[in-house]
Order: sequence, then C-alpha cells, then structure tokens
Amino acid sequence: MSKLQLDSRGRLQHLLTLEGLERQTLVDLLDRAQRFCVRPGAAVKRHDLLAGRTVANLFFEPSTRTRASFELAARRLGAEVLNLDMSMSSAVKGESLVDTLYTLEAMNVDLFAVRHKDTGVPELLARHAAPHVHVLSAGEAHVSHPTQGLLDVLTIRQRKPDFEHLAVAIVGDVRHSRVARSAVQALHILGTKDIRLAGPKSLLPRKGEMRGELFTDTDKALRGADVIMMLRIQKERIRSGSIPSAQAYFKRYGLNAARLKLAKPDAMVMHPGPMNRGVEIAADVADGPQSAIRIQVNNGVAVRMAVMSKFYS
Amino acid sequence: MSKLQLDSRGRLQHLLTLEGLERQTLVDLLDRAQRFCVRPGAAVKRHDLLAGRTVANLFFEPSTRTRASFELAARRLGAEVLNLDMSMSSAVKGESLVDTLYTLEAMNVDLFAVRHKDTGVPELLARHAAPHVHVLSAGEAHVSHPTQGLLDVLTIRQRKPDFEHLAVAIVGDVRHSRVARSAVQALHILGTKDIRLAGPKSLLPRKGEMRGELFTDTDKALRGADVIMMLRIQKERIRSGSIPSAQAYFKRYGLNAARLKLAKPDAMVMHPGPMNRGVEIAADVADGPQSAIRIQVNNGVAVRMAVMSKFYS
Amino acid sequence: MSKLQLDSRGRLQHLLTLEGLERQTLVDLLDRAQRFCVRPGAAVKRHDLLAGRTVANLFFEPSTRTRASFELAARRLGAEVLNLDMSMSSAVKGESLVDTLYTLEAMNVDLFAVRHKDTGVPELLARHAAPHVHVLSAGEAHVSHPTQGLLDVLTIRQRKPDFEHLAVAIVGDVRHSRVARSAVQALHILGTKDIRLAGPKSLLPRKGEMRGELFTDTDKALRGADVIMMLRIQKERIRSGSIPSAQAYFKRYGLNAARLKLAKPDAMVMHPGPMNRGVEIAADVADGPQSAIRIQVNNGVAVRMAVMSKFYS
Repeated sequence: MSKLQLDSRGRLQHLLTLEGLERQTLVDLLDRAQRFCVRPGAAVKRHDLLAGRTVANLFFEPSTRTRASFELAARRLGAEVLNLDMSMSSAVKGESLVDTLYTLEAMNVDLFAVRHKDTGVPELLARHAAPHVHVLSAGEAHVSHPTQGLLDVLTIRQRKPDFEHLAVAIVGDVRHSRVARSAVQALHILGTKDIRLAGPKSLLPRKGEMRGELFTDTDKALRGADVIMMLRIQKERIRSGSIPSAQAYFKRYGLNAARLKLAKPDAMVMHPGPMNRGVEIAADVADGPQSAIRIQVNNGVAVRMAVMSKFYS
Repeated sequence: MSKLQLDSRGRLQHLLTLEGLERQTLVDLLDRAQRFCVRPGAAVKRHDLLAGRTVANLFFEPSTRTRASFELAARRLGAEVLNLDMSMSSAVKGESLVDTLYTLEAMNVDLFAVRHKDTGVPELLARHAAPHVHVLSAGEAHVSHPTQGLLDVLTIRQRKPDFEHLAVAIVGDVRHSRVARSAVQALHILGTKDIRLAGPKSLLPRKGEMRGELFTDTDKALRGADVIMMLRIQKERIRSGSIPSAQAYFKRYGLNAARLKLAKPDAMVMHPGPMNRGVEIAADVADGPQSAIRIQVNNGVAVRMAVMSKFYS
Repeated sequence: MSKLQLDSRGRLQHLLTLEGLERQTLVDLLDRAQRFCVRPGAAVKRHDLLAGRTVANLFFEPSTRTRASFELAARRLGAEVLNLDMSMSSAVKGESLVDTLYTLEAMNVDLFAVRHKDTGVPELLARHAAPHVHVLSAGEAHVSHPTQGLLDVLTIRQRKPDFEHLAVAIVGDVRHSRVARSAVQALHILGTKDIRLAGPKSLLPRKGEMRGELFTDTDKALRGADVIMMLRIQKERIRSGSIPSAQAYFKRYGLNAARLKLAKPDAMVMHPGPMNRGVEIAADVADGPQSAIRIQVNNGVAVRMAVMSKFYS
C-alpha cells in the first residue's frame, strides 16, 4: 500500500488503492456506506458532515456516470462541489498537475476526486497535497479504482456476507481492468480465496501479477461460482486480440442465461457499467433477478460518501 | 396523449406532450406557474418542495438557455441538479439510453428533464422509468416541447386571458417546429379556434397534420391577430427551401413594424428564442412595447417549477 | 473610467476596469476582501449576502481556474451560480450577446461575470443591463482584468502596505497583458510611483500607453524592487517575437534565484498563473519563501466575494 494513505496517527488520509488496506478500515468503510444507502424513490437526506468543505472533481478522463456519483456523494454530505472537466481543458494550458493542485488548494478545495488515464497521478497529487487535503482516486490507469472495489464488496456483502467461502469469477478484459484489480484486492482483504480470472488469453494478466486463478475457458471459471463479475470490453480490444468480432466474444466469454446456470443457483451477477449488452452480457441476464448491477450503482454513491466522511471523522 | 403521462389515479406522472392534456390539468399548471413568477430584480425565493430530490438535466442536444431554465427551476425548488451534457459525452460510450436511465435512477435521480433530437426518446424513458420517477420533456425532435407550450399560453393569459376569442398567428418554419406544435396543442385545449400557421410553403405542415389554417401570405395571416408567434428559422433551411436568402426571408415572412400594424393595435409579439434579428423579426419589434419575448423567458422558469412541483403534490 | 461603473448615487454598479476608480472605493474593496479571506484548511463560512441572487459565469474564453474562483466566490456568498461555457456553445447559435444578456436577466440572473477575448464586451453588457443588474469583468481582451488587479494589490498590502514607497517590477509580455494593465491602475490609485515594465521590446507597450518606466534589461528593472510580478508568456509569442526559444526567454527575462537577489532581500514574487515553470519563472523561485503566488489565488476568491457583496451593500 502507498504509505501516503495513512497519516502519522494511522488514520486514512487519502484513498489511492485498496491494496494493503487494513481489514478493519475496509470493514468500517463498508459499515459507514451501508448507513448512507438510500433506496431509489426515497428522499435523500442531506448531511452536513462536509459542510464548509469544497470537493473538486478533477477528471482528466471523461466519465459522466462516475463524475455524477462523486458529485452527488459530496453534495449529499453538504460540501460545495467544483466540477473540473480537465479532459477538454485547453484552459489548463500546460499548467503542471501539481500547480493545478496548489491553485485549487489555495481556493480552499479540501478534497480531490481524481481520475486519470496515467499511472501515478493520484499518488503524485497526494505526495504534494497540503496536510489537510485528501486525495481520493476515482480511477487510475488500469491499476486502481478503489471506490469501485468497495462498492463491489459492499454489494456482495449485502447478499453473501461470508467472504471466506465465496467463489468469485471475474470475466473479461482482466488485464486492462482497474475494476478487477481493486475488486481482487478488496476480496483478498475480506478473506476470499477462490478468485477466478477468466478471459481471452491476450486479455488475462501475466501469471502472478494478480491474485486468483487464470481461466481461458469461461464455463470452467463459472462452475459453482457465488459471484460473477463481468467486465466491460473495449470494442477496440476485440479486433486487436485474438477475438474476431463482438459476436465471437459474446459466444466465448459473454454471460448468457445458459452459462449463468453453471454457477450456483443464487449466484450474483455484477458489472461495473457501462454495459455492452450482447457483447459481454446478455440483456436478460443484466435485467434478471440475479443481477445486482443497479444495486452496485446505488452502493457507489454510498461508498463515496463513506470515504469522504471518513476523512473528516 | 401518451397514456404514460398519467398514473393509475389520473395524476400527472410524466410530461411528454400537451396533446390531450385535460383542460383542468393545464389550467392548474398555469395557476401554479403564475405563483412562481418572480419579476427580474426581485430576490428569488428558494422553495423546498423538491428538497431531497435529485433532478438530472439529460440534454442530448446542446442548449445553454433551456438547460439554464430547467436548472434554475429545479434549484429554486430545493432539488439537487445534475447537469449531464450528453451531446459531447464520449463518456456514455455506447451505453444504451435505458441503461443511462437505470444508472441515474440507481443514484437516486428522481426526475429527468430530457432533450433529444430523435422522436420518442422521452416516451422511451418514461416507459422504462421506475414508478417514482418523472420524465419531463425538454424538447423532442420536431414533435413536442411541452414546457414551451405552457410558457407561451401563460404569457398570453397574462395579457389576453380570453382564449376562445383570440386570433393567433404562428409564422415561420412551422413544419419543423416543436414550439409551434406544443403551442397549438395548448391553445386548442384552452379553446382558441382561430389559429393561423404561416410561412413558406416548403416549411408549412402538411394539410391536416396540425390544427390551424395554413397561409403562405404572412400579411393575410397577421391581419387582425391578437397574438403573433414568430419562429426561429434555421439559416440552413433557407437555402434548401424556396427562399434564396435571409434578406428575402425577412422581406416575405419577417415581422417588421409595418407588418405588425396589420395585427390588432395591442397584438402581442412572441418568439421562443434565440432570435435571428433581421431574419425572422426586426430588432425594433423584438424590443418594442408589444413584445412579450423576455416575459416568455421569465415565465419559462416558473412553468418548469410548476410542472416539477406538480409531480410532488 | 467608464461612467457606467457608478450609479446615479455614485455607488459601484459594475466593475469593468480599475482605471479611475476612487481610492476610497478601492480601499473599501480590499478591506472587505481581507475579511473574506479564509486560509486553506479552515472550513469556509457560507454567507447569505447574495441569498436569492443568481450569478452567471459567462465565459467566452475557457478558463478553468478563473471560472472556479468566481463560482466559489458566488456560492460562498449564498448565490445560485449558473456556469455557461460560451466558448463551445453552438447552443447560442448566433444569438447576439445582448440577447443572451436579456434572456438570462429574464431568468432572474442578477450578476454577470464576463470573460471575453474582445475589447468592449463587458461594457456592452453593462450598457444594456437592467438597472438592478451588475456586470463584473472576469477578463477583457488585453485591456482589463479588474479582480486580478485587486487581488494583486491585496496580496501586496498584506506584506508591504506602504504603497507610496514601493518599487514594483512587472516582467514579461506587458503589451498583451490585461493583468499588467489592471495591476498598474490599482498601484497608481494607491500611490505607487516606481513602476517598472520589463520585457522584450516587441512585448512592451508603446511609450506613454501605460504608466511606468520601460525596461528591456530585466536585471535593471529588478534592482531594488519590493515586488516582482512575473507575467505568463504565451509560447506562441516567443517565436513570433525576437526571442528564438523558451530557453532564451528564460535566460533573458525569466526569474531565477540569482536574478531575484537583485531585488530587495524581502522582495515578493508574484505570478497570475498558470505558470510556465522554467520559462518565465524558475520552479525554486515559484515555490520559495518569497513567493506569494498561492496567496494570490487565495486572495482571488476573497476579492471576488468583496466585489459581489459590495454590489448588494
């Protein structure tokens, strides 16, 4: 784990990765998030835990849904939110990342949710941040997406809390997936041993790079699974790999109703979104009773509220 | 009318079109809007009728002014507002419209203001929306712009409430105008019989497609009118039609001071904006004493507040 | 000074330029701003001086940092804020600037922060604004950036309040700099006589165009200076001028540690940002103990709060 994550008293200062996080810290975040969950349709309570604080969404990669989730989380905690779409910012005009940090700190921004396609950006900002400032990764290259990992295990815990005896299959472009990496880290902390990483060989991680057993045969990976996490496939990846088409991908790696039957009868189906229906997942499975996909999104806001509020508790 | 608009108890669930709306519902919306009107310069009261609710502006067509009107309406009712500019969203990356709905619902978005250039999108969303979710069209292709229709009749009612005896001329590119369609629907519900649709033949609706009498002679259409609604002309339309230039269009169909004299002495001049001054309307008419154009904009915020609050009353 | 700036009772109606502002008005703005300063890390107090008011950020030039500063200032005063990025607005579709003003006024926008690359736009809007509406320039072509001028003199006053005896060197592309112009105007009002404008000859103003002595020798300009204001250099300017490269520019006009020693031992270093480190300023100087660069940014929010609140006091 990045040493930057904890302050000198061992409290969470930044959240850059789940790797190496203490079990108790992770469980505390899940417990907090559980309390922030509001089912769709109910009026959302506005908290004031971040009153007087300013949160900047510093997104160097465009992402409507993730940005919305962070924005709502911060506002529902009473913070001011600045949305800074850095992906089309000719505005930053070559200003260095660290100067952008310094500038926004000087405007009394207290918390940065950062998304960047390059490795190391959240850590770079955390290293230069003032002592009172918190950096929260909202997605870092292919390496880390900690709030996604948290929301994934929160969603699992709501249905299947016995993590030590779970079999979890993660299927798709595991190699390039920060979602998979953060999920595996979170599962490992919670004691899950049976983690299966499945996909085309060219899209699997190198042996030993990630915890979990590698499968190129999806069916084998799904057999007896409690949880199936499907990953989004970038369509550009299909042609450049050994897969000739989206149809061929769906046939070999997509989750359809028949393949779902290989897993446990009450297996949960998850997907980080946005989905390519008919490519990595069949529409009837995505919308079916075993799907927890929308619950993941609902939990996403709660998990982000949990992390932000933990910084101030 | 779309059956989706009313819930099982006959209450307004969505607002997709004014077509077929009950007179009483429409009048109630106008009465509510009237109470929300705040003249420019006065401090705006912040209501809490939508406290705890989250409104998403889901604009697939860019529109600075309409988006601003919806945003202010929602915020002045106490809602959280998410602005999602889908027009440049590589972010949605091929996610289906309905999945975008599901995702935002799962983030506790309760009300969607939707603008799209394609027919059927607001209805598609309404069909898939959860029972507690409301869809409010902010402009649908050339077919419907219900809040514009409401603000138009509200503006008329403030000066000329006797709808049954009004003569209303709508001039310009009627064929492609959702503004005209919604205005005609609203006027019809309120009892207006003398509706005149004027413009170049190529820009008029087919006979019977819309209520109202067709005119290619603007002067005839204006004679004795109580209300003149000028429509925005897309400059691209001019060349592709029978009109050689903006100047020629202005000469034949534009509203200048001389032509305005053909109407009643107290005739109201309206335009949905943004105006092409000197193309469909002369600057002195747009800014003159008979113009209600800025009042329309003021009423626009009030009307959107009325619809949103009606969903929760 | 534009006569538009003061209302009939001599009170500040708009802020378009600092030129000709009364000393007392300027000092009052600085005193107000001082009270709004919140050091980074402290919780920001939310005032309600602009409760019920709506502020529009009307930015025709993209500017992430300046827009953020105005947005935070307005929100921390309790106003609603509309961000209208006009730089990529196909949305305004040829609507005239003045019609955009009228439209937003009709939506109860009370205060406009306007940034535009063309001369005269803030004044144009001020001339057409309703009596209750305030226009605040957020940068006008190369001619005016009044809140930047205010934050610059506020920053100076916090360390060196004896303006009459200060030597201030402004270095870089003075000719094209609204920052320099507004700073010089503010300094002049406060009694500073020793103002030095330094840079490549092609980037200096014409003789008599601005108050201050012209220098092409940076070292001479810095000698004994109390305050050094470095200006951002547009890299495109370098090639088109007499400067062959960024390296050459840095060597002749950039502020490094050695050159800084020519100034007074306690000389302040300022820069409006965003910085080109290694071009107009060395990194160790920008981050060194004499630098007030981040304090400028902090003061920027306070100064904008001061101006906005003055409009309503």
